[in-house]
Amino acid sequence: MPLVIDIAIAKTNKYASRESGDTVEIVERPGGGMSVIMADGQGSGRAAKALSLLVTAKVAALLKEGVRDGASARAANDFLFAMRHGQVSATLDILSVDLKTSTVVITRNSGTSCLVTNDDGVNVITGTERPLGTHARTRPWTMEFPVAAGVRVILVSDGIAQAGARANDAPLDLASLLCRAGDDAEAQDVADLVLSSAILCDRGKPADDMSVVSLALREHQQPILIRRMRAEVPLP
Amino acid sequence: MPLVIDIAIAKTNKYASRESGDTVEIVERPGGGMSVIMADGQGSGRAAKALSLLVTAKVAALLKEGVRDGASARAANDFLFAMRHGQVSATLDILSVDLKTSTVVITRNSGTSCLVTNDDGVNVITGTERPLGTHARTRPWTMEFPVAAGVRVILVSDGIAQAGARANDAPLDLASLLCRAGDDAEAQDVADLVLSSAILCDRGKPADDMSVVSLALREHQQPILIRRMRAEVPLP
Repeated sequence: MPLVIDIAIAKTNKYASRESGDTVEIVERPGGGMSVIMADGQGSGRAAKALSLLVTAKVAALLKEGVRDGASARAANDFLFAMRHGQVSATLDILSVDLKTSTVVITRNSGTSCLVTNDDGVNVITGTERPLGTHARTRPWTMEFPVAAGVRVILVSDGIAQAGARANDAPLDLASLLCRAGDDAEAQDVADLVLSSAILCDRGKPADDMSVVSLALREHQQPILIRRMRAEVPLP
Repeated sequence: MPLVIDIAIAKTNKYASRESGDTVEIVERPGGGMSVIMADGQGSGRAAKALSLLVTAKVAALLKEGVRDGASARAANDFLFAMRHGQVSATLDILSVDLKTSTVVITRNSGTSCLVTNDDGVNVITGTERPLGTHARTRPWTMEFPVAAGVRVILVSDGIAQAGARANDAPLDLASLLCRAGDDAEAQDVADLVLSSAILCDRGKPADDMSVVSLALREHQQPILIRRMRAEVPLP
């Protein structure tokens, strides 16, 4: 049965901060498929936002030109390093469903754990690489596996990974959250559950910007293929 | 009461065509707010898709650098004209909620009608400008009005505007569709209704690629501001 690529993002600002330093973007791949790009700029507020926008814009432009994910991450590092002389850093996560190769590709320069559900079961992966911008030859951590029904990926920014840390709580257990969401959960349900759990861990006042990216590959039976895209941005 | 920017896209391919020649992208504006970019490349299939991707990628990159919508449309025209020697054309629609100026801005190089609901009531606007790529000094048609609760905009591609034309049906009445969706309808409900009505007009077999962009500005009472973004892409 054919698959549907279901991607969702949920994010919020650090408490009492007007602007989130995280930027998340969804782009269409010229060879077929979709990519999500998440960047977390060093610091918070306006400067961090400008930085993360710069990184996602660079990576989005490269992906839309057909550049490979790994090469795009390397280019973003070199660009940031050249422009800002190694003095600012940003984390970068790229999650792609590549229909040319029929694989899911995860490319990361960040330190948070991510969850992957595929043929190998449910795995929380802690593979990390240093963020972009501080060294000349940084390279990304990558993972690739076949596109298949039942695949799920959850990527989180620092603010989610550290939720509850001030109160010495254990970090969020992504695997048990996914289990709670259920097998039929849509990507948005999972993203919303992870974000609301993280906000709860921080006692309703997020200690940092928080972003969650959730991917689900499900089977569908739509006779006419309808693509949907949506953005909901509540203003203060 | 604060507002939520609610943007939704629904699109489908021409019947029996693997690829849609339309591309729609949502981007975040560096000065605050969101923009949707819709391009319809001349022809259909792979060449049209590559062309529309090229146009949206160019406009998205410029908007993310803080370039004004009108200047971005002009730049996309000049770029396409220079690259393809005036031999290919693409329509372009940019719909922005600009929080710097607190206005909704519509910038168009296309011939379809669009619907705008604001303080002046519900208006279907037929203002057109020629598409990008065929002349050296093409400029866009523009409209700007204040951000306010109750604002709605519907933009459609050619395939929606021409739906039913083969059977000599009257074109879709966007105003009555919006009315049918109801005042509380979310942007996605409106986009889905317009698309499904257009598919129905074409007797279930879209005669051309079809895309709908829907914007709704609604009031919200969320204590914690959570942004959401979603993409659903069913594969053949």
